Amino acid sequence: MILDKINEAKDLKTLQNEEMKILADEIRKLIIKKVNETGGHMGPNLGIVETTIALHKVFNSPVDKIVFDVSHQCYPHKILTGRKEGFTDPSKYNVYTGYTAPEESEHDIFKIGHTSTSTSLAVGLAKARDLKNEKGNIIALIGDGSLSGGEAFEGLDCAADLNSNIIIIVNDNDMSIAENSGGLYKNLKLLRETNGKSELNFFKSLGFDYYYVNEGNCIEKLIETFEKVKDINHPTVVHVKTLKGCGLKEAEENKETFHWIMPHALDNFYNPPIVEQENYTNITTDYILREAKKDKTIVAITPATPGVSGFNKKFREALKNQYVDTGITEQHAVAFASGLAKNGAKPILAVMSSFIQRTYDQLSQDLCLNNSPATILVYWGGLTNADATHLTCFDIPLMMNIPNLVYLAPTNKEEYLAMLDWSVKQNKYSTAIRIPNIELISTGIEDKTDYSILNKYKKEQEGSEVAILGLGNFLPLAYKTAYQIEKTLNIKPTIINPRFITGLDKELLEELKKTHKIIITLEDGILSGGFGEKIASFYGPSNIKVLNYGGKKEFTDRIPLNKIYKDCRLDETLITEDIIQALNLTAIN
Amino acid sequence: MILDKINEAKDLKTLQNEEMKILADEIRKLIIKKVNETGGHMGPNLGIVETTIALHKVFNSPVDKIVFDVSHQCYPHKILTGRKEGFTDPSKYNVYTGYTAPEESEHDIFKIGHTSTSTSLAVGLAKARDLKNEKGNIIALIGDGSLSGGEAFEGLDCAADLNSNIIIIVNDNDMSIAENSGGLYKNLKLLRETNGKSELNFFKSLGFDYYYVNEGNCIEKLIETFEKVKDINHPTVVHVKTLKGCGLKEAEENKETFHWIMPHALDNFYNPPIVEQENYTNITTDYILREAKKDKTIVAITPATPGVSGFNKKFREALKNQYVDTGITEQHAVAFASGLAKNGAKPILAVMSSFIQRTYDQLSQDLCLNNSPATILVYWGGLTNADATHLTCFDIPLMMNIPNLVYLAPTNKEEYLAMLDWSVKQNKYSTAIRIPNIELISTGIEDKTDYSILNKYKKEQEGSEVAILGLGNFLPLAYKTAYQIEKTLNIKPTIINPRFITGLDKELLEELKKTHKIIITLEDGILSGGFGEKIASFYGPSNIKVLNYGGKKEFTDRIPLNKIYKDCRLDETLITEDIIQALNLTAIN
Repeated sequence: MILDKINEAKDLKTLQNEEMKILADEIRKLIIKKVNETGGHMGPNLGIVETTIALHKVFNSPVDKIVFDVSHQCYPHKILTGRKEGFTDPSKYNVYTGYTAPEESEHDIFKIGHTSTSTSLAVGLAKARDLKNEKGNIIALIGDGSLSGGEAFEGLDCAADLNSNIIIIVNDNDMSIAENSGGLYKNLKLLRETNGKSELNFFKSLGFDYYYVNEGNCIEKLIETFEKVKDINHPTVVHVKTLKGCGLKEAEENKETFHWIMPHALDNFYNPPIVEQENYTNITTDYILREAKKDKTIVAITPATPGVSGFNKKFREALKNQYVDTGITEQHAVAFASGLAKNGAKPILAVMSSFIQRTYDQLSQDLCLNNSPATILVYWGGLTNADATHLTCFDIPLMMNIPNLVYLAPTNKEEYLAMLDWSVKQNKYSTAIRIPNIELISTGIEDKTDYSILNKYKKEQEGSEVAILGLGNFLPLAYKTAYQIEKTLNIKPTIINPRFITGLDKELLEELKKTHKIIITLEDGILSGGFGEKIASFYGPSNIKVLNYGGKKEFTDRIPLNKIYKDCRLDETLITEDIIQALNLTAIN
Repeated sequence: MILDKINEAKDLKTLQNEEMKILADEIRKLIIKKVNETGGHMGPNLGIVETTIALHKVFNSPVDKIVFDVSHQCYPHKILTGRKEGFTDPSKYNVYTGYTAPEESEHDIFKIGHTSTSTSLAVGLAKARDLKNEKGNIIALIGDGSLSGGEAFEGLDCAADLNSNIIIIVNDNDMSIAENSGGLYKNLKLLRETNGKSELNFFKSLGFDYYYVNEGNCIEKLIETFEKVKDINHPTVVHVKTLKGCGLKEAEENKETFHWIMPHALDNFYNPPIVEQENYTNITTDYILREAKKDKTIVAITPATPGVSGFNKKFREALKNQYVDTGITEQHAVAFASGLAKNGAKPILAVMSSFIQRTYDQLSQDLCLNNSPATILVYWGGLTNADATHLTCFDIPLMMNIPNLVYLAPTNKEEYLAMLDWSVKQNKYSTAIRIPNIELISTGIEDKTDYSILNKYKKEQEGSEVAILGLGNFLPLAYKTAYQIEKTLNIKPTIINPRFITGLDKELLEELKKTHKIIITLEDGILSGGFGEKIASFYGPSNIKVLNYGGKKEFTDRIPLNKIYKDCRLDETLITEDIIQALNLTAIN
């Protein structure tokens, strides 16, 4: 194998063109095998193999610095920069992260997993280089999809003004995760169709020097162009047309499916396991499809992540103009929803918890300050074993401290559907719902609660001495803890399902004082700034004790969930121990 | 006066061109007189008089909907839509807000005060119109400065894809608050210089139909163009060249100074009162100027709001390439700072509390996840009598719950300078400093604290029974409260200056348990998600009582600060009453 000779990036320097082509094939095979085994980003990595080889052939990383936007296309880079064992040796498949990680290699400048940041980060690197009077190329490699994000535009606009070396490589595979949306993509298409020669040129209009590479999976062509722009003294865009999924027929033909895959998705592609079970995702899409037929102003919106919310092709085709993919534009998506709601439509915006982080000011100013009655569905919220870049444990503190927002935490199917229906049909509040991130629980009993009466908690079990507030995903833990307490202490605790994240049920909390000594709060997210602290503050002046349970304020990085739970004492036995200590009790069992 | 005939927008319909010109003069005079009296946005409003008249002449508000970006140019619109008394009658100068406000008029669609949101909001309005099969024009009026904001780009990109009526009016006065920065502005310049005819056209590259009006302060020309685009069936940009400050010589010649003025700034323009007193702003610029000479990698950064941080012309000229105005790009500015820091430079980014809201994900992902040692200075943080759009009370919960960040709250000059110096010179932590928003206090004693020992609170006064934690701006209130308690209860409270917003001094908090019964927390921002709740949570399991004081989770709107303080019991007498109640004590006085 040619790869045997490549232990660090500089080993590429001596390779001939033919060897590099073979190397590309070798890398491609490794990626297909490994990603099919572990899951991960397939299409983006297969498309960028040649670009990565050419980059390391022409430039001198880490003196020349490459910033990988969203960094889900960094596998070839990892293979070429001393980490190939993570792809050749199955026992080491999980040693390296799926994103750039400075702790792994000096060739990775940043830990990145959210899109559209590379241009700004690169401008910073370039400006520092200039202030230090140093040399070297600063390169941002950004996909066409990521260009729709506002931060990418801010960075591009500033990059164009830099008056020194910065090279933006636009990896144009004509896809975001799904199809691109936005006017910019018509210009990219025009540029592809004119071999980069059209006079209407988005990048040139911003002031960039511009190069186009039509054969972006051809190493020689890429090298030829990279040689031209190396050490260039002004802001330059290299627009490279690549094929997403290149080299894997299934991925080339099903770009969205193979953007990111679960383990063995390739093996199972022609015989996919059939999932007919109800889950929170498909009951949501069913609800939207049904209601959208009745009310033509209902619009389902995704900021370029339709897979997160199950907005699949069938769903999109059924909704027609009642479905909008805004591109990677979380900020716009929230303001867009506000505009829709203000003009009498019923927007339902689906966003993954990690990406709602991009919208604080839009939630606050564009939406909640205007009390626009949009519905935001927050997916995957909770503590997680995910990469540090994709944690989903910050949405509660992010959102619950914004005035006017009603953020709901359902705990079962019927409750969720009742909340969703209320939220979509009311026109008074900006609302958000944290879709349960646990297996679907159905009570079988319709929830007839009037959610327009805000901040009314539900007493699930009447007890005394101890009250447990189990928010959303953690109501089951509240039940388990109550059982453990009863078994251990012969105390039957009160169990409460708060339902409303954004407000206190002061009446109920006040009432609890009479017959309870200690309040336990459980939330599936970081404690810092969240729900439990407000309960502690409420009881601060009283004699009631409060124990808050939730995640720590930290960027965990692929830590198993069990370990996180144990570290945070999110466990019925540990909580019971804490109660025993706080109340100075003795266990009976 | 022609204005006497104009009581609502439709009264414009019958006016002749000459009458409209006179009307423009009348409006201009009213704005100059009123704004000089009350303070407010001068330049943007003077520049947009003719555009506003032409808009209301041609279009039919509120059926046709106009979204005013950042809405600091809405005074002529208010005058023409039934609110002229707010400009003609000095006793009513403060009746109407300085921004669009739906509660005032059906002609105001949104409450807006942050920039770059109009395009997205307008796309939402337009899409809702289409879903409802209604007619009408949707118009976003956006300044050239606001176009650098990423949200504006996201909205533009999506607007271009709309396939129906949406009209983006670009009010190009070749100025942001200060000069524009970014490649886009070279294109706007080129378009102005070519009378809109250059083939390099940013807007056309996105797919917009494009019209250029060179004489943007000429009502006839504007009407002529607006008539052409009225009821157009596809996304259209009207690029209007206007003169910021038009009609007021001082404002035309000093665009930045007259963007927003304090009361009587025009009267005082030729004899400005000399401020030589030390304040937190000028000691900061002095520090930066001094240190930047010694260390050429220090960079002062502003996202287009240099006035907030005192980055005046003298400062900018002295710093040369060590000063960067990034344009209205808070997101980029944070990522840019991260890139600078990662490549060995020393960025100091100055942002107003209200605008740091635009950067949660960048603070989290681009900066803190990467532990990039940048310094962020947060200005004006605290409860405020400001408009609901410009509140500065959310930065603590926004920032303090982000992992890895060190957010500091100095309380006097020496402490602040020590923190600033530590922050700039260390290279381990992403840091932020909440610049005191109170009159400068100087102890005269150099602060030699080693701030690299994180989360070490300072005991300002040793006492017992009651401990008061006075964060940042509210340390003086802690002292006043201590005095009141001692006087009333004959108890000498402990006074603590936490200094670190982002962490608990658990050792000290633990120690307080021994000799204290109640802990008081004071913070100048909303309580929800903030500092005090964490103290309450810490003491939750113990017998110590906690009283948290701070702002409510609400969008206050020009509420006098005294009233806010009283509502929140932020008052030494009220706090003392609460302590008496919580501890069941009797006052001796």
